[in-house]
Amino acid sequence: MKEVMAIIRMNMMNKTKRALAEAGITSMYAKECSGRGKGIIEIPHYIEGAAERYEDMIQELGIAGRLIPKRMINVIVPDKLVKTVVNTVIGVNKTGRSGDGKIFVMPVAESWRVRTGESGDEVLDM
Amino acid sequence: MKEVMAIIRMNMMNKTKRALAEAGITSMYAKECSGRGKGIIEIPHYIEGAAERYEDMIQELGIAGRLIPKRMINVIVPDKLVKTVVNTVIGVNKTGRSGDGKIFVMPVAESWRVRTGESGDEVLDM
Amino acid sequence: MKEVMAIIRMNMMNKTKRALAEAGITSMYAKECSGRGKGIIEIPHYIEGAAERYEDMIQELGIAGRLIPKRMINVIVPDKLVKTVVNTVIGVNKTGRSGDGKIFVMPVAESWRVRTGESGDEVLDM
Repeated sequence: MKEVMAIIRMNMMNKTKRALAEAGITSMYAKECSGRGKGIIEIPHYIEGAAERYEDMIQELGIAGRLIPKRMINVIVPDKLVKTVVNTVIGVNKTGRSGDGKIFVMPVAESWRVRTGESGDEVLDM
Repeated sequence: MKEVMAIIRMNMMNKTKRALAEAGITSMYAKECSGRGKGIIEIPHYIEGAAERYEDMIQELGIAGRLIPKRMINVIVPDKLVKTVVNTVIGVNKTGRSGDGKIFVMPVAESWRVRTGESGDEVLDM
Repeated sequence: MKEVMAIIRMNMMNKTKRALAEAGITSMYAKECSGRGKGIIEIPHYIEGAAERYEDMIQELGIAGRLIPKRMINVIVPDKLVKTVVNTVIGVNKTGRSGDGKIFVMPVAESWRVRTGESGDEVLDM
């Protein structure tokens, strides 16, 4: 059992959800987050802020780069469906431009359905 | 050491927190998220939106199903307390109706307390 | 490959991000969360609420303790950089007072860059 965690552009959320549903993956959860990779940083907002002498923005601009609002989708699937989820997310989200996102796959030890108290792969709604 | 991640109904947060505290689990963190399992989807809001021709809602209604606001509680515990947390969360949240939630248990490799620089199970406040 | 998840004070976010950037860690994501350890709880707000007979606050005050708004930073790094991230986060966030935060290290099985479809350690932008 694995958790596939995809960090994608905010406006790709519905498209990704739909593509997953078409691939038979309808059970998922989502969160808002902010993030960045090593990619090129768009900085006009920060230059503006720094020009107005907001200390925080000067520091950000100088060193750390800003975190960009993103959406995170998490899907927990049996091992045999990991590749399907990864390929579906890449298929929908790949534009070739910086900011397309990342996917991480994490081990999951147990899963439980609260409604019935069941555990195991059958809980994953696949 | 394990992370027990429970996705529950929004209005069950305090009750769950209290039940965990009574079971001796007071250290935890929580996030807002949205999610869905395979369960029956309540759709009046979407039918209404689609009737007003919001493209997004029409698409949602058609294929993917909507994600419902949920609360996520995360508790990191020594292995021997995983069952206690799982049973406590199920005990409080089981109504038998679709939407009761899911619990996932994830492996944790290390834990550190920032205040002291300590690591290991003693950091888990149990 | 590991995920280092740090739960820190809200106002330490930028300082932590900067320290990580100076240590060569620029790829990360962040979320809002609330949380608590076993630490001393600051309760004036709750005593006030309970005095005004808000049921919820009375219960909270009595048993569970409240969750405090926190920031979570997540960094996914090759194994050899875990110690760097942990030490950097502790170095910046350690005040010696209750509420400094926790760090958890989780195993990561796979990582993918959506833009290129690449996977593995090179995706981690280090």
